[in-house]
Amino acid sequence: MELHFPALLSRMNELRDLQGIIGLATWDQETYMPAKADSARAHQLATLQGLHHERLVDPWLGEALAWAAGQTDLDADQRAMVRVLTQERDRAVRVPQALVKALAEAQSRALAAWRQARKEKRFSVFQPALERILALRREQADAYGHEGERYDALLEGYEPGMRVARLTPVLTALRDALIPMVAALGSAPRQVPDLFKEGRRFDGEAQWQFSLRLLEAVGFDMEAGRQDRSIHPFTGGTHPMDVRLTTRIDEENPLNALFSTIHEAGHGLYEQGFAEAHYRTPLAAAPSMGLHESQSRLWENVVGRSRAFWEHFYPELSKAFPQALAGVDLDAFHGAVNRVSPSLIRTEADEVTYNLHIVLRYELELLLIHDSLPLGDLPAAWNERMQRYLGVTPPDDTQGVLQDIHWAWGEFGYFPTYSLGNLYSASLYRAAERALPDLMGQLRRGALLPLRDWLRTHVHQQGYRLPAEELIRQVTGRGLTDVDFLEYLRGKYGALYGVSL
Amino acid sequence: MELHFPALLSRMNELRDLQGIIGLATWDQETYMPAKADSARAHQLATLQGLHHERLVDPWLGEALAWAAGQTDLDADQRAMVRVLTQERDRAVRVPQALVKALAEAQSRALAAWRQARKEKRFSVFQPALERILALRREQADAYGHEGERYDALLEGYEPGMRVARLTPVLTALRDALIPMVAALGSAPRQVPDLFKEGRRFDGEAQWQFSLRLLEAVGFDMEAGRQDRSIHPFTGGTHPMDVRLTTRIDEENPLNALFSTIHEAGHGLYEQGFAEAHYRTPLAAAPSMGLHESQSRLWENVVGRSRAFWEHFYPELSKAFPQALAGVDLDAFHGAVNRVSPSLIRTEADEVTYNLHIVLRYELELLLIHDSLPLGDLPAAWNERMQRYLGVTPPDDTQGVLQDIHWAWGEFGYFPTYSLGNLYSASLYRAAERALPDLMGQLRRGALLPLRDWLRTHVHQQGYRLPAEELIRQVTGRGLTDVDFLEYLRGKYGALYGVSL
Repeated sequence: MELHFPALLSRMNELRDLQGIIGLATWDQETYMPAKADSARAHQLATLQGLHHERLVDPWLGEALAWAAGQTDLDADQRAMVRVLTQERDRAVRVPQALVKALAEAQSRALAAWRQARKEKRFSVFQPALERILALRREQADAYGHEGERYDALLEGYEPGMRVARLTPVLTALRDALIPMVAALGSAPRQVPDLFKEGRRFDGEAQWQFSLRLLEAVGFDMEAGRQDRSIHPFTGGTHPMDVRLTTRIDEENPLNALFSTIHEAGHGLYEQGFAEAHYRTPLAAAPSMGLHESQSRLWENVVGRSRAFWEHFYPELSKAFPQALAGVDLDAFHGAVNRVSPSLIRTEADEVTYNLHIVLRYELELLLIHDSLPLGDLPAAWNERMQRYLGVTPPDDTQGVLQDIHWAWGEFGYFPTYSLGNLYSASLYRAAERALPDLMGQLRRGALLPLRDWLRTHVHQQGYRLPAEELIRQVTGRGLTDVDFLEYLRGKYGALYGVSL
Repeated sequence: MELHFPALLSRMNELRDLQGIIGLATWDQETYMPAKADSARAHQLATLQGLHHERLVDPWLGEALAWAAGQTDLDADQRAMVRVLTQERDRAVRVPQALVKALAEAQSRALAAWRQARKEKRFSVFQPALERILALRREQADAYGHEGERYDALLEGYEPGMRVARLTPVLTALRDALIPMVAALGSAPRQVPDLFKEGRRFDGEAQWQFSLRLLEAVGFDMEAGRQDRSIHPFTGGTHPMDVRLTTRIDEENPLNALFSTIHEAGHGLYEQGFAEAHYRTPLAAAPSMGLHESQSRLWENVVGRSRAFWEHFYPELSKAFPQALAGVDLDAFHGAVNRVSPSLIRTEADEVTYNLHIVLRYELELLLIHDSLPLGDLPAAWNERMQRYLGVTPPDDTQGVLQDIHWAWGEFGYFPTYSLGNLYSASLYRAAERALPDLMGQLRRGALLPLRDWLRTHVHQQGYRLPAEELIRQVTGRGLTDVDFLEYLRGKYGALYGVSL
């Protein structure tokens, strides 16, 4: 076999093209696909994923990658491409086809059982299907291989390079700092009213127009992407020049559209920002889900919930909704979008309590993957931690252990990437503040492009050259830490609630 | 190699899934894709088409089809699947990869040259690129193989089973009947005014709503399909449960949206009507482009331009556009949508002159593929025939030989399928009239579902069980003929223009 890099690159291109098309078919499924196409689309996606898998595990690719790993004349990007694809391929090769099939079937059954269990509000309906998914995911983790900590093998699928030994101390310290912070905010003398439980009505078309205005302001390129509506907002697309965001409009509460737009725009800017030289290669990708999430959370929370941001945009917003926002001033609005309140549902949680929801799930996942928590005890373990961390107890399983779809999908190892996103976002923003001395002034003037461009240069254009934590270290001067995030929370919420945290 | 039908079926499913996904990517390209994704999408489509080709020519499939052809225990549908896929595969196998590549390159150059030539209004700018495309298509035809008539090998790609020896006499007779008919209508004492050159304005949203109303009336299932906008209306989609129509709204002329909607709905009903047992197999397809076109033209012209149809729908239409249609009565409207007028541009031609545009192209294509017309003489040959058949002469090549994109795409053999569509549509409608004695009354009442259901049973559900002309013979009692079409024209236009034709 005659080998040369262009042949390998061409296979990389093919794999990325297939992923792009899978992205299109998935986006379409959630936006424009007719209802009766459900089963046809499932077949089409299975065919595409099967072809992608077949091309990835193809022995030719294994030989080509092994050959390339030994070449000394490749440049740094080429070496990174070979490394990233080798990692992806090695994982794919290690899982027997029978297990892949068993997982797909178990997942499909677990999804149905989870839906039924939510209807009946009883975890026990979901339990046997979850047991099966867990058994298969443990088997898969062992097939991937690990050095003692089985959870590491699953975490690797979402956050390559991250390990339990590195993550647990950080998340535990974060938890122990957040519990008293939540308590302090709860008993603070100054409280923040909830503006959006008062029957105001926010015109849907005006929300849509304002969301487009926000996309323009953050510099999302509408000629290399678009925004549509879907039930659950997400970022998808086929290529850095074809990035597709969705949002959801709720006429009673404009915060869904506002913050999901800024959140998805953060993901979208990342995708649009990959270097042209990396297009159609494994380098046009975030090195981890946590790093991807750092971009959405930086824009949504650190920027999008800041007083400086709304100093510029609130006058526009109140003009767009003159009746609904009559009598609501900037401070009241800024307070309302940052209101801290321990609650049952993760996706509705504020910035301060959010990570306690994640730590709870992470701790339970570790126990479940270790097989050291009998599944029958899971709801009680959930409720006990909810009470201990947040001071609330779910009235039923639907508002507790059954609230997220992730476990029904078999996605163990995914939740911690949300917290990594928060921690990384604060550290990156601190680094941006050091690099852009007028950053606060720019936000106040609605000038968001300098921040976008700084992120583009230091994060997006790097693609997958480095693992996530190494990239963070390169940009911020240190790796994973809760210091920047806690400092950010203390500053922001201390001021808002008039307490010292 | 152990062979069994399910393994072959599974490969058939995979090929259809890939075609479906190519359909999605193409539809998206024309509707929602961001502008800057052009080049990325071209790569993605090339990758998908490459994979489809690779799976089709895969030697395993050849062996499996040969094995299946020898099995005696397959049912009729299974045998038809094997026959259809064998034909498709045999053609694909015969074209060397180098020729496929050369054709793709020549096509891309010819498209650019055609656009430039249209700008400069000079055929000579297009000539060298067309020469190249023609040479390659001749080579491809010889690679496909034929029994003396090279054009047959190209026709086979659009109209399997059709031959020049069968087609030429029919189209020549049609031509010779149409030329005097056009002349007689031109000198008829009663003339039909053109209502849509008078600066009326038809609200775009009202046009859109009316087009949806028409889709509902013809029984297009909006849960198994959708309608969007594109520059050129087309029918696409991924599966019979996912059929996508597009239309174009022109606020000065509602006929674009009205008739493109009914036209594409005809294609769409065909796609939605395939038998469930044929989904994801080669049988969920029309046996030819002419037969597919028969459905669009039956609905657009035979039904959609009939007086009976507008007896029901014109009151609704005039209510939707009270100002624009003020003072226009049913007869005036019906006349205007059936106005016969020899013109330069095929896509704007009426039902009577349309097929003369096609015969002209067919005759020139035969000469070009025979290599018996020097390319430098093509514009003159075009103009001479335009004068002879229609009595008009293009003032420049853009309104003459450069008007259609087909030859730049290398699509020789495609044009005649439009005329076959017209001929088949009239014959099928005649058969429907015999089977549904109250058909005219149903149209008058806006009851279009009986006709749809008759077509569904006798045409759509048959899929690709039979070649086109055999299916027509089975449904109408005879094969390809111009008798029904000419009788239809004589009846309709004789009445409208008050002449005996």
